[in-house]
Amino acid sequence: MRTRFILIETSHAGNVGSVARAMKVMGFDDLVLVRPRWADVLQREEALALASGADDLLARARIVQTLDEALDGVSHVCATAMTPRDFGPPTVAPRAHLAELAARLLSPAAASLGVTAADPADGAAQPDPASAVPIGVAFLFGSERYGMKNEDVYRCHACLSIPTAPDYGSLNLAAAVQLIAYEWRQALGGFALPASGAPQPRAADAQAVAGLLAHWEQALVAVGFLDPAAPRKLMPRLNQLFNRAEPTEEEIHILRGVARAMLQTTTQARR
Amino acid sequence: MRTRFILIETSHAGNVGSVARAMKVMGFDDLVLVRPRWADVLQREEALALASGADDLLARARIVQTLDEALDGVSHVCATAMTPRDFGPPTVAPRAHLAELAARLLSPAAASLGVTAADPADGAAQPDPASAVPIGVAFLFGSERYGMKNEDVYRCHACLSIPTAPDYGSLNLAAAVQLIAYEWRQALGGFALPASGAPQPRAADAQAVAGLLAHWEQALVAVGFLDPAAPRKLMPRLNQLFNRAEPTEEEIHILRGVARAMLQTTTQARR
Repeated sequence: MRTRFILIETSHAGNVGSVARAMKVMGFDDLVLVRPRWADVLQREEALALASGADDLLARARIVQTLDEALDGVSHVCATAMTPRDFGPPTVAPRAHLAELAARLLSPAAASLGVTAADPADGAAQPDPASAVPIGVAFLFGSERYGMKNEDVYRCHACLSIPTAPDYGSLNLAAAVQLIAYEWRQALGGFALPASGAPQPRAADAQAVAGLLAHWEQALVAVGFLDPAAPRKLMPRLNQLFNRAEPTEEEIHILRGVARAMLQTTTQARR
Repeated sequence: MRTRFILIETSHAGNVGSVARAMKVMGFDDLVLVRPRWADVLQREEALALASGADDLLARARIVQTLDEALDGVSHVCATAMTPRDFGPPTVAPRAHLAELAARLLSPAAASLGVTAADPADGAAQPDPASAVPIGVAFLFGSERYGMKNEDVYRCHACLSIPTAPDYGSLNLAAAVQLIAYEWRQALGGFALPASGAPQPRAADAQAVAGLLAHWEQALVAVGFLDPAAPRKLMPRLNQLFNRAEPTEEEIHILRGVARAMLQTTTQARR
């Protein structure tokens, strides 16, 4: 599925670089700028510095003069704005709207209409070359200072409002792009977590924990910490602690080693 | 519930300002810096500029020399790291882990253990002054250049890994803080969307849509667009279009006005 981020009348070159980085880290690469303050913003030093390895996005980004030119191939347009506009599209929370949108666009019903999620970068591609009409989704972001104009919001199918603190809703532009890119990526199925090098350790069973406790009880009596005549619920307490810790087999082995060392020490001390 | 963001060995003053802004926009205010590169980072011009109204967080932030000093009152510590560490805590996706953590810490079982979510800023407070032991959650972020050290990761209960593109995982520090702050806020119940000034418009019922279609059919015949002898499924097509658009009562009124104008124009033309 084509996903485009459109910045309208952006003022700060640094923000454009940070936006490229925020997009790339979530696997998106289609950036369009409408009337940026600086015509050379994509080559400015500050933009390149903050893109930090996402300069390929800046190299491929387009600059256009009207929102119309930015919307080719896009069928669903989302505004981002703090304030709902009368006569504008419904104001919705990103998580709920994007989950619903992804479910709808990736559904078999959408495929049967001849639309297809065709961008391989999105991972969720369902190519159907014969009848492929690419679906396009665009996210619009207004200027740092004034946000989005009413006339641009009216063009949109939904107005995404990132829920912020009631007394401080001042989201940085690149931070807003980061959150929307993240939510859309999650809605599209997300990326996998990095694989751990180590194999997943096996949790010890309750029998192993019981064996550990018996060993420790013996050792704690030997070192004089547990008085069998007045046990003060020490063993049930340790049992609960070990239950919560859910030790692995290797950890049981370590803890039994500690008990063994306590017992050996007391045996040597008695000699 | 106390929520603390801890930056370890941060290099860039601008990032510290951006982090303060990212936290405040999600309603968090407890920031601690461990061994920042600049001792005066909280007063630096770049930090203040990028905090953009969140300078109260910088004014209240603490600078300490060890991670130990930063962890007072904190019972659950989350590392943030791209790479899982052998012998470290389990690497988990933020959304799943934070949802589970919030459910656990806000549960009646947690309250019965004498812990309580005591920070009124978090909105989800369940005060129990008699037996209140505040729950504290901390999120740790390593330096821009090297990320988190193994020894700091080992201290943690979980290692949050923000899922990023397989070929480009270079999240900016403030962007990472923004995503974690957002996810934790969502897990705690989130903030409400801004209220729309206009009352929610009522969707017209199917009878009103049928009335509109009858009116349009008459008008389209009158202006010569619809030939009753060869209707070519025009009305069923319009019916489907209007069904998808789910018009409000006011929009039905507008569309009937258009039909009325078409009919009046043809009547006048015939005179």
